[in-house]
Amino acid sequence: MYDFIIVGGGMSGLSAAMYGTRLGLKTLTIAEMPGGLITTTHLVENWPGIKSISGPELANNMIEHAKASGAEIKSARVQSIEKLESPDDCPRYKVKTASEEFECKTVMISTGTKHRKLGIPGEKELENKGVSYCALCDGGFFRDKIVAVVGGGDSAAKEAIFLSEHCKKVYIVVRRDVLRAEPINAERIAQNDKIEILYKTELEEILGTDKVEKVRFQEGTGGEMAGQELELDGVFMAIGHIAQTDIAKELGVELNEKGEIKINRRSETNLKGVFAAGDCCDTGFKQAITGSAEGVTASYYAYHVCQSGAAF
Amino acid sequence: MYDFIIVGGGMSGLSAAMYGTRLGLKTLTIAEMPGGLITTTHLVENWPGIKSISGPELANNMIEHAKASGAEIKSARVQSIEKLESPDDCPRYKVKTASEEFECKTVMISTGTKHRKLGIPGEKELENKGVSYCALCDGGFFRDKIVAVVGGGDSAAKEAIFLSEHCKKVYIVVRRDVLRAEPINAERIAQNDKIEILYKTELEEILGTDKVEKVRFQEGTGGEMAGQELELDGVFMAIGHIAQTDIAKELGVELNEKGEIKINRRSETNLKGVFAAGDCCDTGFKQAITGSAEGVTASYYAYHVCQSGAAF
Repeated sequence: MYDFIIVGGGMSGLSAAMYGTRLGLKTLTIAEMPGGLITTTHLVENWPGIKSISGPELANNMIEHAKASGAEIKSARVQSIEKLESPDDCPRYKVKTASEEFECKTVMISTGTKHRKLGIPGEKELENKGVSYCALCDGGFFRDKIVAVVGGGDSAAKEAIFLSEHCKKVYIVVRRDVLRAEPINAERIAQNDKIEILYKTELEEILGTDKVEKVRFQEGTGGEMAGQELELDGVFMAIGHIAQTDIAKELGVELNEKGEIKINRRSETNLKGVFAAGDCCDTGFKQAITGSAEGVTASYYAYHVCQSGAAF
Repeated sequence: MYDFIIVGGGMSGLSAAMYGTRLGLKTLTIAEMPGGLITTTHLVENWPGIKSISGPELANNMIEHAKASGAEIKSARVQSIEKLESPDDCPRYKVKTASEEFECKTVMISTGTKHRKLGIPGEKELENKGVSYCALCDGGFFRDKIVAVVGGGDSAAKEAIFLSEHCKKVYIVVRRDVLRAEPINAERIAQNDKIEILYKTELEEILGTDKVEKVRFQEGTGGEMAGQELELDGVFMAIGHIAQTDIAKELGVELNEKGEIKINRRSETNLKGVFAAGDCCDTGFKQAITGSAEGVTASYYAYHVCQSGAAF
């Protein structure tokens, strides 16, 4: 019987694992990808206290720190979490992987999101070599460069505005004939000489050897660049994220309209003993540091639950 | 005219300074004690990703990171923040030190707390040499040792319970003849062989050369240890914190019954354009990492306000 099982071993999960063990909770972390999404990030320059570190190195530091605190980390994919029969003030859950199952008093879901991908040739090959899924993370690397943002929603608009502060030129590649941005963002783009919208345009391929060199647009989409090529240095995908909350939903955890887990300032969900943290949650500004703090907070209130609401 | 002025340069303030400048906000940090309270902590072992670091070194890393991002940090004591006449959707504030004043669109208050001190001989001299103000931070250094917790409230009770998981013996030094703990904590203490309460007892002096060796109790208080000495290894003060929120209160920021600033998940206070983060806020579990995340979150929503609610 574990006190605290953490499903997902990214920045949030590992922070909770480190704190949970420090608080004396018998803690198990089950991670499909120990280290999580940040391991796919080239350089992290906004983890407070560290000017610059590679994503994998930061993740590794977190893993080592959690282990040094006594955390048990298992590499596996959790298939389901079930609520067991128990008194209301004393929750019990069962966490199942393909081959094992574990019981616990409290559980934290930190299963993150996946960047939605376009699925075109060159996208995967050039990821972190000019192809990025996070303007805020990587925009600084494209100072005075030419980039394209792919997407037709407000997040594409916002990423383009942000990138225009760094880049020489920013194209927005929009499939339809309209950019569905918030009015104020649409107006800003209209007034921004650096940003150009390519309507009715879709990427067919991203080209380059060691780094992005150009893109080729599909033919027959109706846009003026259809069938042509464009030289540029970076392609930012802003076509959305997929919150990985299927397990949470099946358990009965309340989600918002985006499919994100609703949490409060204690990282509590609607179910007693079930916490959540990180990118799978409904936090407005999702960063490694905010997810980490949510995980730490969850471990503290999990300690509360395990101690029947007392101590601390 | 600054976009974002940060009052207080501890972990929360420095995190906000780093992010604020990254987001392109013209940011000024005014800190009475750059680095903040963590600089008084001997060893930090719960900053995620770093197994062990001295408080001053961690603070210095934060300062260097903020500066590398372009942050302007001024060493001064802020005397007041005033709201200037301005339209509701376009706030303006004036921040005053003894010799200067600055105008800004948004302001973040991260003025922290101070540990309440007993003010007895030996307390200051042996701070971090056995005298601690944080069981959760330092409890691990007293494994199998004898310690005393000073205080008569529930936080003293909780600290003693927590310490009993590490220490051989824990005394609670209570001035009155009753420990005002929550019932469940009082019951736990009653059932815990390691914890002994010394009622009607007050410390007179903490003794030791390089580290705490013993304490002497006042005479005439009525307790059985009155006037005697007790050998031990550590003294934990649990006599409360003082939230430094006078400036916030004068500005009209809403405080809770403990005098802490009320914030929401966006680190917003009741005043538009006024944010708060860290130990001076009403967060239940206050840690360096949670304050840092609150500061980062504040910088993001300050960016919103400065951009009239748009972009990101």
